[in-house]
Amino acid sequence: MTAVTRPGGRTAAVRDAVLRAAADLLVETGLEGLELAAVAQRAGVGKSTVYRRWGTVAALVADLLVDMADTSSRRPATGALSTDLLAAAKLIRRTLTDPRQGALFKAIIATATSDPTTAQALAAFYRKRVDEVSPVVIDAVDRGEAPDGVDAREVIRHLSAPLYYRFLTDTAPISAADVRRSVALTMAGVQAGVFGPEAAGPTPPGPRTTTPTGSATGRRRTES
Amino acid sequence: MTAVTRPGGRTAAVRDAVLRAAADLLVETGLEGLELAAVAQRAGVGKSTVYRRWGTVAALVADLLVDMADTSSRRPATGALSTDLLAAAKLIRRTLTDPRQGALFKAIIATATSDPTTAQALAAFYRKRVDEVSPVVIDAVDRGEAPDGVDAREVIRHLSAPLYYRFLTDTAPISAADVRRSVALTMAGVQAGVFGPEAAGPTPPGPRTTTPTGSATGRRRTES
Repeated sequence: MTAVTRPGGRTAAVRDAVLRAAADLLVETGLEGLELAAVAQRAGVGKSTVYRRWGTVAALVADLLVDMADTSSRRPATGALSTDLLAAAKLIRRTLTDPRQGALFKAIIATATSDPTTAQALAAFYRKRVDEVSPVVIDAVDRGEAPDGVDAREVIRHLSAPLYYRFLTDTAPISAADVRRSVALTMAGVQAGVFGPEAAGPTPPGPRTTTPTGSATGRRRTES
Repeated sequence: MTAVTRPGGRTAAVRDAVLRAAADLLVETGLEGLELAAVAQRAGVGKSTVYRRWGTVAALVADLLVDMADTSSRRPATGALSTDLLAAAKLIRRTLTDPRQGALFKAIIATATSDPTTAQALAAFYRKRVDEVSPVVIDAVDRGEAPDGVDAREVIRHLSAPLYYRFLTDTAPISAADVRRSVALTMAGVQAGVFGPEAAGPTPPGPRTTTPTGSATGRRRTES
């Protein structure tokens, strides 16, 4: 195999090749086709390397999730909560409706239903994704668009939930209307105080005074 | 095998035994352990009966879903939308956190991610479940608690979504707080008009005039 010069060197190149091969096999054949020997062959690396480094299929899927979490996109920053949430929801729709990405997520979520290692890795993946997007809510608090003490992570989780529910339990594809409804519902919940101790109500005129102690979620942008 | 006298006779008794055996194997071993021969043996019926009647594992899982849909519980009728939604959400939590039922749903949802027949059956199952609970929203419209033209099915789908999202992507169990938050969010969405063409606003005093043409969802109680 000809090594490609890249950051991280040969070890990272092997990991990349193995994870890409694992994702390919998951997409094409589901979990049944994901055997370490087949992954090694497809990746063009030695079987013993794959067995030594990952050992089990579950460990390999867990590492794939770590890699997917590391290569995530930036948080939206449109200047308003509703458009930030819309951008985040559109990205979820785009990911889940993409033939390759959608199949990969379905295979991993299915694996997590019966394998505890994959379930832990999947939960960690979503915690990381949610943490990356949550600052849009913290910024909305600073702008007076959301109540102080709102649970930013729960806002993002509830934005995602209807899209995943359709993805996993329905044959109808996730539509643009699904995205808009999820954003509208999440905004209504924020405004009604569903995710925090108090309702925001109408935005007060002029700059809003925020307390320096931060919210219950402890993720004020100025502190992180 | 000693036949038990029951409604439906021997054919129904065989189906019951086979579906129960299929559910047991799904819970215990996941989809991998679900082979028609193993199901027949566990059910104490002839292999040829199972092969002739169901033919494939996917058809068997689909029939299991039909059976699960047929044995569903009644819709809540507490007299108010928020308490009806709370009862429905509590039932979802109870089902998904029950060790046997939860494992069964996980196995079926996982199967649906890679098998189109199961995916169709699963979608039909949830359509039926949602249709059974949706009248609580139609009644709420009649009481003036929800806006005319609200999409009752979408209300129920969005009540379920956060509970399923936690169930399938998180290792934290579904909590009572998750149930309350889902109800509060759904209620906020109903009141803000997220699921229909207009917001309900505060309930007007006295009896409310409803239009005889029915809502966009076409499921007015007086018409069905």
